[in-house]
Amino acid sequence: MNVWQPDRGLDKPVYRQIADYFEQRIMRGELTAGSTLPAERKMAAELGVNRTTVIQAYEELRAAGLVVRKAGSGTTVAGGAASPLRSADWRRYLDVGTMLPNSDAMRRIRAGLRKEAGLVDFASGELSETLFPGETIRGIFAGQPYDGPLGYDDPQGYGPFREALASFLSRHLRIGASASSLLITSGSQQSLFLIMQCLLNHGDDVAVETPSYCFSLPLLQSAGLRVHPLPVGAEGIDPDDVARLHRRHRLKMLFLNPNYQNPTGTVLAADRRRRLLQIAEDAGIPIVEDDPFSLTAFDGKPPLPLKAEDPGGRILYVGSLSKIAASGLRVGWLAGPQEIVSRLADARQQMDFGMSVIPQWLAAKLIRGDVFDRQIGRLRAQLAARMDELRVSLDYHLADLVSYAPPGGGLNLWVKWLGEGDPRQLRTLERALAAGVAYVPGQVFGAEEASLRLCYAKPAAGEIEQGVLRLKKVLTSRR
Amino acid sequence: MNVWQPDRGLDKPVYRQIADYFEQRIMRGELTAGSTLPAERKMAAELGVNRTTVIQAYEELRAAGLVVRKAGSGTTVAGGAASPLRSADWRRYLDVGTMLPNSDAMRRIRAGLRKEAGLVDFASGELSETLFPGETIRGIFAGQPYDGPLGYDDPQGYGPFREALASFLSRHLRIGASASSLLITSGSQQSLFLIMQCLLNHGDDVAVETPSYCFSLPLLQSAGLRVHPLPVGAEGIDPDDVARLHRRHRLKMLFLNPNYQNPTGTVLAADRRRRLLQIAEDAGIPIVEDDPFSLTAFDGKPPLPLKAEDPGGRILYVGSLSKIAASGLRVGWLAGPQEIVSRLADARQQMDFGMSVIPQWLAAKLIRGDVFDRQIGRLRAQLAARMDELRVSLDYHLADLVSYAPPGGGLNLWVKWLGEGDPRQLRTLERALAAGVAYVPGQVFGAEEASLRLCYAKPAAGEIEQGVLRLKKVLTSRR
Repeated sequence: MNVWQPDRGLDKPVYRQIADYFEQRIMRGELTAGSTLPAERKMAAELGVNRTTVIQAYEELRAAGLVVRKAGSGTTVAGGAASPLRSADWRRYLDVGTMLPNSDAMRRIRAGLRKEAGLVDFASGELSETLFPGETIRGIFAGQPYDGPLGYDDPQGYGPFREALASFLSRHLRIGASASSLLITSGSQQSLFLIMQCLLNHGDDVAVETPSYCFSLPLLQSAGLRVHPLPVGAEGIDPDDVARLHRRHRLKMLFLNPNYQNPTGTVLAADRRRRLLQIAEDAGIPIVEDDPFSLTAFDGKPPLPLKAEDPGGRILYVGSLSKIAASGLRVGWLAGPQEIVSRLADARQQMDFGMSVIPQWLAAKLIRGDVFDRQIGRLRAQLAARMDELRVSLDYHLADLVSYAPPGGGLNLWVKWLGEGDPRQLRTLERALAAGVAYVPGQVFGAEEASLRLCYAKPAAGEIEQGVLRLKKVLTSRR
Repeated sequence: MNVWQPDRGLDKPVYRQIADYFEQRIMRGELTAGSTLPAERKMAAELGVNRTTVIQAYEELRAAGLVVRKAGSGTTVAGGAASPLRSADWRRYLDVGTMLPNSDAMRRIRAGLRKEAGLVDFASGELSETLFPGETIRGIFAGQPYDGPLGYDDPQGYGPFREALASFLSRHLRIGASASSLLITSGSQQSLFLIMQCLLNHGDDVAVETPSYCFSLPLLQSAGLRVHPLPVGAEGIDPDDVARLHRRHRLKMLFLNPNYQNPTGTVLAADRRRRLLQIAEDAGIPIVEDDPFSLTAFDGKPPLPLKAEDPGGRILYVGSLSKIAASGLRVGWLAGPQEIVSRLADARQQMDFGMSVIPQWLAAKLIRGDVFDRQIGRLRAQLAARMDELRVSLDYHLADLVSYAPPGGGLNLWVKWLGEGDPRQLRTLERALAAGVAYVPGQVFGAEEASLRLCYAKPAAGEIEQGVLRLKKVLTSRR
């Protein structure tokens, strides 16, 4: 988070620069009374200096009366340090509001990823830079002057991109959607947020695959939903579970990721799809189909999304470019009945007044050509190769300690841990980060057994075995 | 919203193309049972065809059993039309959730702006295309290859942009903010949304300038806040009102736009600023300072923002490029205490997983150079000239019917209507849109008297007098 760095070219000693930096931030009220300075070791790692340099800087601040240092509780900004003015008591604003903070595990992982260089990152569920179509993107910007609008645009998203997307979805996934039934969102994430915030009430009953990506963010809890689990087996969820839950709870919505489910990688079996759709139809339950991975199918032949057959308009289909192009574009979409799409577009205006047109302009050019189709082809091959590398490494180094089912697409391998250590403990996660490997513990996805998710798309190719060795060391040590 | 258009080059008659388009959308479930097709006249205007062509198309659909037509209630999709499947009953999902829909007036204005060509737009509070730095933006993309990241980025926003912004805010507005105390958001809008959703609870008491831009969106109501008005006079709000309200209600936060307030254009007087800050300090009330307009000061010398002196970290400062560069970039920011910025960044991850890096990469290049400083200079001159044109037109054509105070900056003129007609009535607004002029009626901003906001930045230069003449016709006619 901290982008400031000391300047070694200056005459001023580094410890003095650090002290000045914090003094300034305290005087400006950016660090208020009672807030904590980074731990010495963490700060030293972040700035690439010795721990003693940081201690010297903090001591300077203490001598100036700006901070208080206590063994155990670290270094905190002194009361009334900033100025004669009383600092606003921000603490009472921190634990309120309807949006819950992210889980400790996720925050810890993010902090670790920011800090530790040379870490093998099995945690971030995204493509590595080398898998992004960077050349094509640079080529689009360089090749043609930007001719999209610069003012507020259509609340549903940039028209030409919605047109291109309608044709893309039809070509690749046989989804028939008009441009006017598409809402462009900041990744799938914003589609899911809008659905939960605008179409459901606090206390509503919904059913969600378990484990599921949905549990990795406090979204469901923030929206106050009563979440009923749908256990995911080798063939996906059991439609009879949906029927049973509905009889008891009158479900308002289902959240499913039928193709290469995150995190388990499973595909919902064909007969189960038919039964599920029949049950949803009889009971009148809408389905949110999260479909980030279909186009990553290693053999290029994903099962068709549920949305490909949806004459009743029962399915809100959610997708994005994050896992097939680049997550940083923040381009996702939702396809559904016009009145729902309009409602969500209207609500989105309140949140952020719509998305920047520039990434949408870019996305329209990107998905139109054959170039991108060929790139997706290459991406599939590379993902398959990485998954294979991970599989081979696990079999070789951790054979009897893990159990998994290799997926046919997607970015993630779901691993059950059969050994003595427990990847779910925050302590184990901390040790893994310190040992140079990041993963997401299973409980983040709502799993009850000892398990972890390994994303094979993010580490550099060739790093994967190294990561598995580090995992082995941490998970099999007796500390 | 509707980007589809009939293709006159085809052999198929236009009415048939329209009928096919709707048939397809009904069969796909995009238009579900009971949903309404656009009114004939509206549809005809949108597609640029005769009304009889639309009637012919709708009759085709009726004959096929796909729609029901009733005088008065228009054309609706027939039950069971789509398929033997029962359509999901979406209607019960439309009126729930925590995000209220936009007001009728705002939705009507937006629809009008989309539809009516040649309309003089005093309603959209943004710059016209001709005032955007389009050449500079195209030049940045063409001149240097995109070298920003393409993966998930820092939750607070793209580091190099935050660095550039810290220096920009210091240079132009004497705001001392570190990159690490800045959160980049999708316009000011997302900053305000995050503050209301994450730092306040339902039922909290807050005070807001009245009239205020804040009322034009259902944001405050969606967040369930108890809003107390702070009347805006010629010198801005009266700080004693804050003290009085706080004694009675224990205010949790103040929402203010001290420089060129939206919609009134007033500037909070210097002595009132001092008193306000003292009262806020004594009472421990944080202030949200919305500051979109400071850099549009016609004389280039805006009063310093409150944030320029904020040693206690009491102020959450919110700004954006929307009114000084281009609204479609969707680049805004919030400066505040580190712990608040971190909390909001964490919550934003849940909403949309952060902003696209591309507009931030562009913004970093844009605000770094003198080129942009000179552009802001030109923008000021052009805004001043437009405001003058509007003032002269109003004085000439509506002299005794309006009262206003010309602002020293910003994009808006706040006009009190002294005549017999009432600009607040939805009927009057509809007639204005039909007559080719759009404005925002005063009650949208929470005003009680007959009033309207005219934005002089959006209409083409030279259109302004035409717009005033149309307004006159509508507001002084006896219908």
